[in-house]
Amino acid sequence: MVDRGKPEQSSSRQSHTLDRKRVYTSQFNARVISPDLPENVMIFDTTLRDGEQTPGIALSIEDKVQIANALSDLGVDVIEAGFPTSSSGEREAIRKIVDQGLQSRVCGLARCNKKDIDAALDCGLDYIHTFIATSDCHLQYKLKMTREEVRGRAVEAIEYAKSHGVTVEFSCEDATRTDLDFLKEMHLAVQEAGVDKINVPDTVGTISPAAMEYLIGELMTVTKVPIAVHCHDDFGLAVANSLSAVRAGARQVHVTMNGLGERAGNAALEETVLGLMAFYNVGTNIETRMIGPTSRLVAKLTGYPVPPIKAIVGNNAFAHESGIHVHGVLGAPSTYEAFGPELVGVQRSIVMGKHTGAHSVRTKLAEYGVDMDDGQINLVVDRIKRLADSGKEVDDAELVALASHILGERESEKVKLKEFAVFTGMNITPTAVVSIEVNGERKTGSATGIGPVDAAINAIKLVMGNDISLVEYRLNAITGGSDALCEVSVRVARNGGKTIMSVGKAIGSDIVQTSVDSTMEALDRLYCRKKE
Amino acid sequence: MVDRGKPEQSSSRQSHTLDRKRVYTSQFNARVISPDLPENVMIFDTTLRDGEQTPGIALSIEDKVQIANALSDLGVDVIEAGFPTSSSGEREAIRKIVDQGLQSRVCGLARCNKKDIDAALDCGLDYIHTFIATSDCHLQYKLKMTREEVRGRAVEAIEYAKSHGVTVEFSCEDATRTDLDFLKEMHLAVQEAGVDKINVPDTVGTISPAAMEYLIGELMTVTKVPIAVHCHDDFGLAVANSLSAVRAGARQVHVTMNGLGERAGNAALEETVLGLMAFYNVGTNIETRMIGPTSRLVAKLTGYPVPPIKAIVGNNAFAHESGIHVHGVLGAPSTYEAFGPELVGVQRSIVMGKHTGAHSVRTKLAEYGVDMDDGQINLVVDRIKRLADSGKEVDDAELVALASHILGERESEKVKLKEFAVFTGMNITPTAVVSIEVNGERKTGSATGIGPVDAAINAIKLVMGNDISLVEYRLNAITGGSDALCEVSVRVARNGGKTIMSVGKAIGSDIVQTSVDSTMEALDRLYCRKKE
Repeated sequence: MVDRGKPEQSSSRQSHTLDRKRVYTSQFNARVISPDLPENVMIFDTTLRDGEQTPGIALSIEDKVQIANALSDLGVDVIEAGFPTSSSGEREAIRKIVDQGLQSRVCGLARCNKKDIDAALDCGLDYIHTFIATSDCHLQYKLKMTREEVRGRAVEAIEYAKSHGVTVEFSCEDATRTDLDFLKEMHLAVQEAGVDKINVPDTVGTISPAAMEYLIGELMTVTKVPIAVHCHDDFGLAVANSLSAVRAGARQVHVTMNGLGERAGNAALEETVLGLMAFYNVGTNIETRMIGPTSRLVAKLTGYPVPPIKAIVGNNAFAHESGIHVHGVLGAPSTYEAFGPELVGVQRSIVMGKHTGAHSVRTKLAEYGVDMDDGQINLVVDRIKRLADSGKEVDDAELVALASHILGERESEKVKLKEFAVFTGMNITPTAVVSIEVNGERKTGSATGIGPVDAAINAIKLVMGNDISLVEYRLNAITGGSDALCEVSVRVARNGGKTIMSVGKAIGSDIVQTSVDSTMEALDRLYCRKKE
Repeated sequence: MVDRGKPEQSSSRQSHTLDRKRVYTSQFNARVISPDLPENVMIFDTTLRDGEQTPGIALSIEDKVQIANALSDLGVDVIEAGFPTSSSGEREAIRKIVDQGLQSRVCGLARCNKKDIDAALDCGLDYIHTFIATSDCHLQYKLKMTREEVRGRAVEAIEYAKSHGVTVEFSCEDATRTDLDFLKEMHLAVQEAGVDKINVPDTVGTISPAAMEYLIGELMTVTKVPIAVHCHDDFGLAVANSLSAVRAGARQVHVTMNGLGERAGNAALEETVLGLMAFYNVGTNIETRMIGPTSRLVAKLTGYPVPPIKAIVGNNAFAHESGIHVHGVLGAPSTYEAFGPELVGVQRSIVMGKHTGAHSVRTKLAEYGVDMDDGQINLVVDRIKRLADSGKEVDDAELVALASHILGERESEKVKLKEFAVFTGMNITPTAVVSIEVNGERKTGSATGIGPVDAAINAIKLVMGNDISLVEYRLNAITGGSDALCEVSVRVARNGGKTIMSVGKAIGSDIVQTSVDSTMEALDRLYCRKKE
């Protein structure tokens, strides 16, 4: 059933290896490449199973189906779609995923018992991942079983599953803390029972890369079916351990998108795949340009944002702030990037801060249609450094504010709020009234909204005319008391022939007033802009 | 000046190694331990330099001094306090840090020129970290210098710095992409110039652990001073590479708290230190119990929260949701934890979700004074699983709501909002009026506040009496339009003899009404509670 040692999907997929001209990694990697590395490794994605066990994540059936489709488009070989026995909703989701007819194989998790395996079969799965713990710690404290009982249970379960003609992958849970002789015994026993693949889980993430290489090497001496590896990141070593396992003979890696999973998570798909390609020249079926979009989808649906400093897909992974780095990257990206962000479907960004230089400032201001000479740019750079030294972050709104100030555009306000009030409550349609002076002319109007902020913004838009639109409204999270400070930033556009953007930002205790203040600031800048 | 090969602080600090009885890692780690490993490795923390170069981070002078003190208390051997030449604020911060008389040594970064070194000396530093790029890529695109020029510049700078009697550490920037022969030449040349320590930066994070071991092994053949290593996490391998370097002979590691730093960040202090201890039995001067508090301080002051799935210090690192895991951990933590969270000064948590079991629910409800029998608990567990299947996250507020519903406490509301209105605007003191029915009796009152939400909450508190207090108010971040949904959760306490807590949560488009709704929900639950 399984084409041993080769990716099951290799016939229908195009394998992806890195175009070596597009990456610039350490040349020392090539000096230690093992001659036994395979051309391809299979990617077993467990975002929907171990990833979903991340505390607080609960995907709906629709979410799961959407993610499964994205993973299949990304090119993963196997999707572990869930743990069928856990609930009826879980089974329904898995059935729907099976019904999609994806290019990836779809697999379900089952403990070594008839009930769990039946639940998996009942979902229409033809690939079952079954497991039982084998470490003394788990035997004694969790299972309260002997080694013989555990071995018997595993063999029985595999024979039962195989009798239904499905592909069976088996894991000794907590393998890395299991006695080596017993682990080998287990591998031999399950092979005899007809298992198709054996996974080696570092369940608690407690092995080092060198030890993983040793362990897989030992297991290779008794294991004839392909070995997979499943690593956790409790010591930050999940990716390194996965790469080590492949060096030693593993031919499949368990991964999750964005490294989601129990506790510190699993090996991240994006890091593992890029690492295999860049360091070992080992291919996978992953279409790397889809990594960024898939990462963002998973972040959105799981509610777990990608941390900025996350490798490959974090917002900072291709962001540069310091003058030295920005200067280097603008000259040749390879100075501070191993590969271009387009390879993994993400974008490069230049960030303003205390380490910023003139290059960055000019590029960023151009986005807002602000043009300055060299002397003026240097004044902005100085001002940014001073603000940063006092602990202040300089975002786009502040940058544009600094620039307008230096250009002397805001000596007198062009757009001025003269009057503002809002009323809301129970069984009251939130209503706002504003009076704004534009170039000396006063305009007054009122509007309703679904909340007081919305009513206020609507009233401003009404008064200012149809060519004004609110592109973005951001309110930072508030934690503390009801009197905590809030920070609002808005992005406003004026569409007259070509669109001009502006940004405004305000901080205050009254959320409605603060929203109005930030909008007025953005409008004022828009009307002060010299060229339109 | 430097006690070569041994930690400079070893006389005044107590070295920390792990009590092996308190960790339960893979026994295979011991099988591959190199016999040449040292007893101790030095920790060089660059949170205040490379960490501060994380886009968007700008620490004030006070923040920097506070972090430096915390790092010294944590036990780091060297604090890289900044890049003196970059700004006058930077120099002032470094001077203040030097003035603290910390137990850690304080170091500053300088390019290989007189101006940068003078700026460092001018701050009163007696330890300078100087660097110049040596890879062909950096030479060609950034420095536009020849190898000979670079070597000459480095030697000159080191001789100049050494002539002032300070400790000098030198880095070949982008060492891992530098020609090996030239790298060795550089090491020999700077040694001759009197350098005290040589750091090997993997500037762009592009080396594999095996290649790092090879590289450090090669450099050890020509390097007589201690070798340090500085790894970036662009492929998720910063910690693994640091550990590899130590295996091969490096005696100092550059790290940052929480893994902050350029792009994907640097090797995280917490992971590197625990890895050295757990896998190699190599000690450091780090007081591990201070890791959690230091991590939280750095997260707060930098504005970079620790991602939940971050190893060691993330909120999930010791969180358990799935029934199997919670059951295991309550029996024996070692089943799913390599070590107890107290070792690193963080806490274990049990989280509610689709994988939750009865054990977790009972423990969590007890925190809110809710007592249920087994049948009722099972009903709650079923309800949580159903909610989770539909994609709903179950937080404490929802759990308590479910429980009250099952206990039949909320068949009729005890506390009911009958009337509510709020008024705010420009030059208007935000004012709210509420009318609440408590057990059939109607109470009305008005209050002002610094914003409409604050006014509304104040009016509710006034009407409900002095024993009610708002412990926490949380509003999620809003991104989108001014009509986006907002989510408010509140924690309310009633102080009558002993304090009882309650939680409420609401979602809506009107931020003021939503805040009132969540508060009313919390109050209603408080008044419905059977036992007080």
